[in-house]
Amino acid sequence: MTDEIKNVLREALGPKAVLESKERLEPFGSDGSDLFHIPELVVEVQTTAQVCKVMQLASRYRFPVTPRGLGTGRAGGAVPVRGGVVLSLAPMNRILAIEPDNMIAEVEAGVLTLDLKEAAKARGLFYPPDPASLDTCSIGGNAATNAGGPACLKYGTTRDYVLGLECVLPSGVSIRTGVKTRKGVVGYDLTRLIVGSEGTLAVITKMTLKLIAHPPSLMTLVAFYGELTTAMASIRKILMAGHVPCAMEFLDDRCLRLAGDLLPFKGIDRAGALLIIEVDGDPDMIAREIETIGVICQRGGALEVLMAPDAAKRAKLWEVRRQVSLRIEENAPFVIREDIAVPLGRITALCENLPEVEKAWNLAIYAFGHAGDGNVHILITAADTSGRQRAAEAVGAILKVVLGLGGTISGEHGIGLLKRPFLPLELGPENIRLQRDIKGLFDPQLILNPDKVFP
Amino acid sequence: MTDEIKNVLREALGPKAVLESKERLEPFGSDGSDLFHIPELVVEVQTTAQVCKVMQLASRYRFPVTPRGLGTGRAGGAVPVRGGVVLSLAPMNRILAIEPDNMIAEVEAGVLTLDLKEAAKARGLFYPPDPASLDTCSIGGNAATNAGGPACLKYGTTRDYVLGLECVLPSGVSIRTGVKTRKGVVGYDLTRLIVGSEGTLAVITKMTLKLIAHPPSLMTLVAFYGELTTAMASIRKILMAGHVPCAMEFLDDRCLRLAGDLLPFKGIDRAGALLIIEVDGDPDMIAREIETIGVICQRGGALEVLMAPDAAKRAKLWEVRRQVSLRIEENAPFVIREDIAVPLGRITALCENLPEVEKAWNLAIYAFGHAGDGNVHILITAADTSGRQRAAEAVGAILKVVLGLGGTISGEHGIGLLKRPFLPLELGPENIRLQRDIKGLFDPQLILNPDKVFP
Repeated sequence: MTDEIKNVLREALGPKAVLESKERLEPFGSDGSDLFHIPELVVEVQTTAQVCKVMQLASRYRFPVTPRGLGTGRAGGAVPVRGGVVLSLAPMNRILAIEPDNMIAEVEAGVLTLDLKEAAKARGLFYPPDPASLDTCSIGGNAATNAGGPACLKYGTTRDYVLGLECVLPSGVSIRTGVKTRKGVVGYDLTRLIVGSEGTLAVITKMTLKLIAHPPSLMTLVAFYGELTTAMASIRKILMAGHVPCAMEFLDDRCLRLAGDLLPFKGIDRAGALLIIEVDGDPDMIAREIETIGVICQRGGALEVLMAPDAAKRAKLWEVRRQVSLRIEENAPFVIREDIAVPLGRITALCENLPEVEKAWNLAIYAFGHAGDGNVHILITAADTSGRQRAAEAVGAILKVVLGLGGTISGEHGIGLLKRPFLPLELGPENIRLQRDIKGLFDPQLILNPDKVFP
Repeated sequence: MTDEIKNVLREALGPKAVLESKERLEPFGSDGSDLFHIPELVVEVQTTAQVCKVMQLASRYRFPVTPRGLGTGRAGGAVPVRGGVVLSLAPMNRILAIEPDNMIAEVEAGVLTLDLKEAAKARGLFYPPDPASLDTCSIGGNAATNAGGPACLKYGTTRDYVLGLECVLPSGVSIRTGVKTRKGVVGYDLTRLIVGSEGTLAVITKMTLKLIAHPPSLMTLVAFYGELTTAMASIRKILMAGHVPCAMEFLDDRCLRLAGDLLPFKGIDRAGALLIIEVDGDPDMIAREIETIGVICQRGGALEVLMAPDAAKRAKLWEVRRQVSLRIEENAPFVIREDIAVPLGRITALCENLPEVEKAWNLAIYAFGHAGDGNVHILITAADTSGRQRAAEAVGAILKVVLGLGGTISGEHGIGLLKRPFLPLELGPENIRLQRDIKGLFDPQLILNPDKVFP
């Protein structure tokens, strides 16, 4: 990043769009991972034309550009590891249209996910994806990482709601992909190739999103089990009985010991697993459905099944889920967050392997997450920072177990920087070669979010 | 295709796998479109290794290979327009596994879609996609075209059920893509790039499919309306009330005049549109739901709302839907089938344009299809074959209307050969260039299903 380049960028975008001082650059050096690398320059864009301009200059002068939504990614995908420019889409935060007749939304990439959800709700519509960071993350970042969340069990991930994109290729050319319709099979699915590509193929600037009707109500149930095995058997019975809850979360015994005191219920000390199950829809129907699900849990060996009939109690339950993460972070000098997924029937087998790993590397390992879709968050900590190396080794061991069970090394967070070294554990060399070739096709100079995804 | 190549293929695959006589080749010259081009050779493969072998030889000798499932495609995608080899995957028809615990299936590409649906059902599981040809089409062909059907409104298209693929690249190398899990964000989504690529990027040999619980019951309602406008307003009200039927089909007035006599109801002569609406799930819940939907239709101006409580009556209703197509074909010397989709709120606007087109080109135009997702089948006929040119011109006019309404030129059938000329109406030149580059990356010699999709 020579002075010449900086001048050209300032001229092209206006001086206010270009951040240069160390204190203004620093917040753009990290994301929701522990990683940090300060950018040389931050460019805050307001329009697609400005994104084109930045990429055209990047192509001409060959400087790296790291696109960034609101910087909540867990895998380091927005960390500018090669320096250069961080391209912040945060100012592109307009909801361009909510169309109730067509049940779609048109948004800019920097829109806060919660803002979209609320704007849709105000028109009776629902944008279902609900990543944990929904009140701090951007819809463009959600698309770049194909973000999930508890509701994905019923509603699918971000990918299922992105009908079309406007995006800027590394060359600086903007294209439109996809449709505004529910269905479409015209040519290759560029939309879903770019969704989940973690900002390495194109900069997403605008999106056409599918909306559905907002469910009028929601009911929550919590069930304690003596053991994880019986809890997971209930999950499968609930699914096989045709129920599709909008959340089926679990906490393992370690998580319960850490945050169970917050639960507004007794008997938690006997519990080896907890399920939080939610259904949404017509109030009468879900009242019956949650009851049926409760019966399945009871017959499946739950120690206790409790309803959370009001919003306050519901909030308390989810607070426990949230507190698990926070307390782990508070109590440990560092945390490695894994985000694996296994086939539905394999969660127990996975969790049964964790105590052995704990013992072998002298660590504390917590498991919780989306029991209904096999996506388990595994948090690995040691009592002191000197355990970091042991924890890293344990990660390798856990990922091997995961892959041995037919699983995947990332269910929600993506590869970014953090999981790059593990990619070849899951994907064959021919698959990786093909993916690299696609990267090279979109970005022959390797200027867009370089050094991400591929080792 | 020199004699040398034929010999090499015979040697590599065994003489029984290679078909050469004109009468054995002819059935492989056409598909579910009107198009025909006889292949020079047909190779029937039993294993992935054989597919690799064929593609290796094709790469070496540079002959075109057209992969084929069961040949039911509507767009000519399996027609070997450049001659060469038709690679029939029909013999690869084994269901390798149905895993109830993991709610997935492993299948070979040549499996009949109905066979998979029934094998899943026997284990309490459901494979939802239901293209009209489900009792004659292959699951691999469904993936190649991202096939839809009425149930896609509730359940999504084939794309949403393909978790992972085994496929053979044009070079003859086989790769695995995707996962066996509900979620996965590891690298680029090659699975969904290949799904819907109409056999132009890779030959799909095996698939991992997502299954869900089989809904225990189904209820059907039929509603007559004086006009299409009011019928479509009901569709939107039903969706906005949070119902997600597993089918919402419509027939326009022309279709009713053609096949309405088959309906087991009176009063059809007054009707300008008919809706067939189905819900599936728990018997008690759907009984209440279908009633609520009936009330929405009635309040929305339906002339009559009738339940089809038993399977016989239901079968009769769907028979009408099927007969529309057949009677149009019987009564006309030719039929052009369009398969467009428009945003949900635009179906009426689209249909209102059709009489004008009919008049201007002296044609008969029928519209019916998936009202719940905006995917309308438009069948265009003239009284005699001399109208073919007029019909072709009318197609151009209709597609312009569709695109003007924010729609797409194909909702289900794909581009294949038939719609190639229209691709540039929908996609910008930069988008098409990128798609062509992807094709060139996978298939630099342009040997796999050449001359398809791109004009």
